[in-house]
Amino acid sequence: MSGDSMTTAPTLSLIPQRALSAADSLDPSAMDNAAHQETPVFALHRGGKMEIAATVPLRDRADLSLAYTPGVAEVCTAIAERPELARDYTWKSHVVAVVTDGTAVLGLGDIGPLAALPVMEGKAVLFKQFGGVDAVPICLDCTDVDDLVETIVRLAPAFGGINLEDISAPRCFEVEARLRERLDIPVFHDDQHGTAIVLLAALRNAATVTGRTLGDLRAVISGAGAAGVAIAKILVGAGIGDVAVADSRGVVESGRADLTEVKQELCLFTNRTGLSGSLESALAGADVFIGVSAGQVPESAVATMAPGCIIAAMANPNPEIHPDVARKYAAVVATGRSDFPNQVNNVLAFPGVFAGAMSVRASTITESMKLAAAEALAAVVADELSPECVIPSPFDPRVAPAVSAAVAAAARAAGVARL
Amino acid sequence: MSGDSMTTAPTLSLIPQRALSAADSLDPSAMDNAAHQETPVFALHRGGKMEIAATVPLRDRADLSLAYTPGVAEVCTAIAERPELARDYTWKSHVVAVVTDGTAVLGLGDIGPLAALPVMEGKAVLFKQFGGVDAVPICLDCTDVDDLVETIVRLAPAFGGINLEDISAPRCFEVEARLRERLDIPVFHDDQHGTAIVLLAALRNAATVTGRTLGDLRAVISGAGAAGVAIAKILVGAGIGDVAVADSRGVVESGRADLTEVKQELCLFTNRTGLSGSLESALAGADVFIGVSAGQVPESAVATMAPGCIIAAMANPNPEIHPDVARKYAAVVATGRSDFPNQVNNVLAFPGVFAGAMSVRASTITESMKLAAAEALAAVVADELSPECVIPSPFDPRVAPAVSAAVAAAARAAGVARL
Repeated sequence: MSGDSMTTAPTLSLIPQRALSAADSLDPSAMDNAAHQETPVFALHRGGKMEIAATVPLRDRADLSLAYTPGVAEVCTAIAERPELARDYTWKSHVVAVVTDGTAVLGLGDIGPLAALPVMEGKAVLFKQFGGVDAVPICLDCTDVDDLVETIVRLAPAFGGINLEDISAPRCFEVEARLRERLDIPVFHDDQHGTAIVLLAALRNAATVTGRTLGDLRAVISGAGAAGVAIAKILVGAGIGDVAVADSRGVVESGRADLTEVKQELCLFTNRTGLSGSLESALAGADVFIGVSAGQVPESAVATMAPGCIIAAMANPNPEIHPDVARKYAAVVATGRSDFPNQVNNVLAFPGVFAGAMSVRASTITESMKLAAAEALAAVVADELSPECVIPSPFDPRVAPAVSAAVAAAARAAGVARL
Repeated sequence: MSGDSMTTAPTLSLIPQRALSAADSLDPSAMDNAAHQETPVFALHRGGKMEIAATVPLRDRADLSLAYTPGVAEVCTAIAERPELARDYTWKSHVVAVVTDGTAVLGLGDIGPLAALPVMEGKAVLFKQFGGVDAVPICLDCTDVDDLVETIVRLAPAFGGINLEDISAPRCFEVEARLRERLDIPVFHDDQHGTAIVLLAALRNAATVTGRTLGDLRAVISGAGAAGVAIAKILVGAGIGDVAVADSRGVVESGRADLTEVKQELCLFTNRTGLSGSLESALAGADVFIGVSAGQVPESAVATMAPGCIIAAMANPNPEIHPDVARKYAAVVATGRSDFPNQVNNVLAFPGVFAGAMSVRASTITESMKLAAAEALAAVVADELSPECVIPSPFDPRVAPAVSAAVAAAARAAGVARL
């Protein structure tokens, strides 16, 4: 038995994947775990949603001498001499860190890094399933911007990309900006740019369906957080007619004295017609409503929008304007929900964006790469456009390859590709 | 095509796993990559050695609504209320961070975090293959003790254990000690304790083979780095007769004025007979030689050791005493090499140690758990002991379950188990 026999399959059973039970726990509160065991959600989450798998054989001493010592030393030495070889001979080229501090998790808010882990695991498995990108959940126990930036810079060497997730505004803007300066790998805050890319794709197709172009449209965004700011930027970059952003105090405009730095910057390129006052008043005559907030919009305000308007009410689970109401006034209606047509779902963007950027070893993700992603995503359903189909299904297998190819081409065109 | 069809297999081909080639690279130096492509080691390392795999289905909207939004929010909320549930419903209970700063990688020294990645990936796949433990390589771009400790504390929430690797002495001692204080998960510097556990197991069996007990033995360790210090500690903890440690300047003893803090501490529990002077002089009459250094020991010094002595010369690839020489004087000879009998290989310890500790959700790894691991490891070959077999093969499938069970039992006995 002590010879060089082939090893058996991994002994996964060494670590039990089960809930604490009263019988084998010192924790008297363990008994009420039974409640969690009963629902399909908790049953599915037992033991987590992911694992590591080796992609090389480890059957005998010969395998070990290649994958580990002494052979591995040759690879280490080569990388020490030529760092770019790490992309060829480690998993760096295809692994992303999904990084959060747990301050803005789903609609739950600041629940902390540990409680954010199920979302980050979910994100990681979506990366793999939809983009073939390996992803590792990293939940950081710090919230200071300096601490977040330094920590992420320090852990970056083993990763080929950084997907920031569920970090609250306005810290998320500075964290991303500083990481983009410090790192030579793609850094992408999905709550901003993933949402913006998918929304832009939907809006392009909605404009086409209603016989217009982006330049014909005046949009109003409800919500000036991570998603709202990023959507405003990408719409302006894509050539929208005008866009105004409203926060809980009304339209963001330069006359307001209460604006954060990020909102002051918004004034430079949004709201060219100089709207002020409430969100509701801004909707009068608007062509597009984009909801990325938790607030509700009264039907009376929806009724004042332009004929043939477009409504993307993406709050979850309760859209700012319920689709049944929106349909009474709008030519195209989108939501963030899977049980209505036109779901604006980030999974349509981030797997392909990272796959495309990493396939050419891009040093960053440029605005042009995001715009290319949106165009490619919109084009997937170009031949089947209708008011009920302005965006592909998350399960459409054409999506990730199309987005990936477009992002890779845009990276080459932008001069940030290294392959 | 845009309906809720089942997704195809992960589109892994989106990110090419290949070397830079002159044809598609702007890097003129890429042409000499051809050299790397030719050896089996580089061919095996192409694209790295590991990947992420989902352990839950993601076929349709129903799956997505359980594994991701909206279902996942229930799990997040439950963990926010009761943090210990993270062990039940995320991968935390079975995932270890393999953390290095790249300062003491194999025998290569300070090659930096990126060049260390192939070793960390190798370690990660060994964790999985031999212990069923998922492991993620984390290569940190900082070397200051404070920075390392803070960074590791911050990234700890998503992990169930921290395996420190290839961090140079003496910083490794302080990093580990401070992390053990700050974190409630196992922290284990494998270069210290993995080596110490396996060596102790080998020495126990070697003593038995030669008709002695540990208490009968006087040992000399060559090397006062991470492994040497840890071996000294575990041997004293296990009840060895006496042990002296020698660094490049000779035996560590309290009369020396050049001792670091760690070596001063060694004086408190080693070298009870008050040896001083050279390693060679200390070997006169010694029962055990333990080599964890790069130096060579002259045959004339080996010849002065006690009859029936035990030699474990673990320097790689060149043992401090070549086995052919050692066998002339010693009753039992061990090395770190796979091509001689009695290979002292850390893979005999770390997978089972972490699997055992994590299987009972231990908050730390105690000295008693390490001693239990060594005893269990030694016991695996108790019925087949011989001078050529004092330690199991790394591929012996009995090893990890035996070590894991012993470590789990010791954790319960020590009161650090939480399951």
